Amino acid sequence: MRALSLLPVKILGTGIALPSNIVTTAAIKTRAFQDRAVDDLFSRTGIRTRRWADQDADHAAFARDALRAAARDAEIPLTAIGRIIFVNSTGGDALVPATVNCVIEGLGLDGVCDGFDLNNACMGFLSGLDVASRCVATGSRPVAVVAVELLSRHIDETNRRSFAVLGDAAAAAIVGPARGDAGIVSSWFGNRGSYRTSVTLAHTKAGEARETIQFAHSNRAITEEALGAISTSVEEVLRRAGLTRDEIAWYVIHQPNGSMFRKVLRAVKIPPEKTTPLVEELGSVGAASTAVGLHRVLRPGRARAGDHVLLAGVGSGMAYGALIYRVER
Amino acid sequence: MRALSLLPVKILGTGIALPSNIVTTAAIKTRAFQDRAVDDLFSRTGIRTRRWADQDADHAAFARDALRAAARDAEIPLTAIGRIIFVNSTGGDALVPATVNCVIEGLGLDGVCDGFDLNNACMGFLSGLDVASRCVATGSRPVAVVAVELLSRHIDETNRRSFAVLGDAAAAAIVGPARGDAGIVSSWFGNRGSYRTSVTLAHTKAGEARETIQFAHSNRAITEEALGAISTSVEEVLRRAGLTRDEIAWYVIHQPNGSMFRKVLRAVKIPPEKTTPLVEELGSVGAASTAVGLHRVLRPGRARAGDHVLLAGVGSGMAYGALIYRVER
Repeated sequence: MRALSLLPVKILGTGIALPSNIVTTAAIKTRAFQDRAVDDLFSRTGIRTRRWADQDADHAAFARDALRAAARDAEIPLTAIGRIIFVNSTGGDALVPATVNCVIEGLGLDGVCDGFDLNNACMGFLSGLDVASRCVATGSRPVAVVAVELLSRHIDETNRRSFAVLGDAAAAAIVGPARGDAGIVSSWFGNRGSYRTSVTLAHTKAGEARETIQFAHSNRAITEEALGAISTSVEEVLRRAGLTRDEIAWYVIHQPNGSMFRKVLRAVKIPPEKTTPLVEELGSVGAASTAVGLHRVLRPGRARAGDHVLLAGVGSGMAYGALIYRVER
Repeated sequence: MRALSLLPVKILGTGIALPSNIVTTAAIKTRAFQDRAVDDLFSRTGIRTRRWADQDADHAAFARDALRAAARDAEIPLTAIGRIIFVNSTGGDALVPATVNCVIEGLGLDGVCDGFDLNNACMGFLSGLDVASRCVATGSRPVAVVAVELLSRHIDETNRRSFAVLGDAAAAAIVGPARGDAGIVSSWFGNRGSYRTSVTLAHTKAGEARETIQFAHSNRAITEEALGAISTSVEEVLRRAGLTRDEIAWYVIHQPNGSMFRKVLRAVKIPPEKTTPLVEELGSVGAASTAVGLHRVLRPGRARAGDHVLLAGVGSGMAYGALIYRVER
């Protein structure tokens, strides 16, 4: 997917919804890592706290809360939204119908907007943002992208890594038309199925087993491939935008864990002060990571008129990509 | 989602992939309806045969076969595809990563194109076609939409309706740029979550039970609502396109069963000779229904240069909508 021309869109507003229950790494140690020191766990994961929703919480409820917050931020009524893209990696609340229907009904938007569910693992929010921008650029009414990941319910109690890193979060962005030179300056995405076994969640249609997220044994080759994929994504969007690294004011980088985040910053040569760290506070939250990051960058006092924001990620698939958004002047 | 301006795209090619195993309604009678005559079963469902894939067949393999056929039809190499949208209602082959990755790898397109999974129940293919067209209209390389539904594995043996109607099928379309006045003339989509309990497939994350498709008890109010939704969709796309019913050469209508198909033709006043019946042969194939229908309409000897093709559907969600495609002159 290559696009050279500007998509004249504006992120009208963003919002987040986080579970209230905060789980500390000390609590994780007590439950599953009694042989480890808390400091050791923190240094290995880069995570101090994460949020865990109730095991039976609805994805749709978190989506609605994040969308309401985004509409308030945008100062538009929810009825201004023409399409909702519900992004999730784990099958949502039901397989049929798409979870977006429950989101739409709960917001009072039955018959007012359409929607669908989109899954591209940790890259889902960026894929959704690209699609939303292309819809708006071709005349659609504002399109909302909402990423909801409730990963804590898929923790494998026999695989401690999932205990240590997974968290729950939701965040939304509403994309509308822009004037002038604001918009998506460039985007670049890719998938490589040959690396699809690094992080998996089986679909146990037959109900033989509880569905849990599995991490392949740490594999230097896969880590190198992931770093290469995100570096290439950043270079490609910069080249296509005709921008240099220094001309980017903010980098919103997917943060599956603290160690990978640090490696990416080093590999891509991103100054830490241009990023919005969130993995230490929220843990690994799948597609919601870049959505929360975008929300934080667009807060008052941070991104300013004309700033370039580069969003980039890599996730299970392997899926990877980046886009550059220029804030309206 | 309202769009008034033409999206200048061309459906470069289409293809289908069907399981080889044909199951007759006589065989269905023997297995589950020994108290009914075959003719009675046929008159209630409008289905004479359906295809059932092996229970452990991969969605990705069917997607690859349909995409290869579509690329041959388009006379383009697979490497010309810039994005693949994998459409499915039942969670694909895995939840993480997105099933599209396995499709991309199997086609030798690792690093060549990107992709994601999209779910909007029976409306997924039309949602995907809309998104693909908007991607191409904003400068993307050709985008392929492939719908794969292997519904037979979700048959509930205690709910005979699923035995009688569900079938398996896959079909793909590749969308590329067009010149002149060809393209998507208009599109209109909606979702109504308040009707989301008519057809359901639970997501049994916890593995308590086998996941089976459930039909709510037949409910005249829901049938009326579905007919109303599809009628409104057809009227809205015609109005937005400035076309009359008579100016449509072909109608590709979602066919969940023979009775609903006949009711839609009556409600929307569509002459049967302008349609491509397929439910009698294939059964209820979810999002693959409109994809197979489009493939059949675009065969040599059917749709001609300049013809308007109206695609419309309604499905669980309730999701509904329509779009009008003008064949390149």
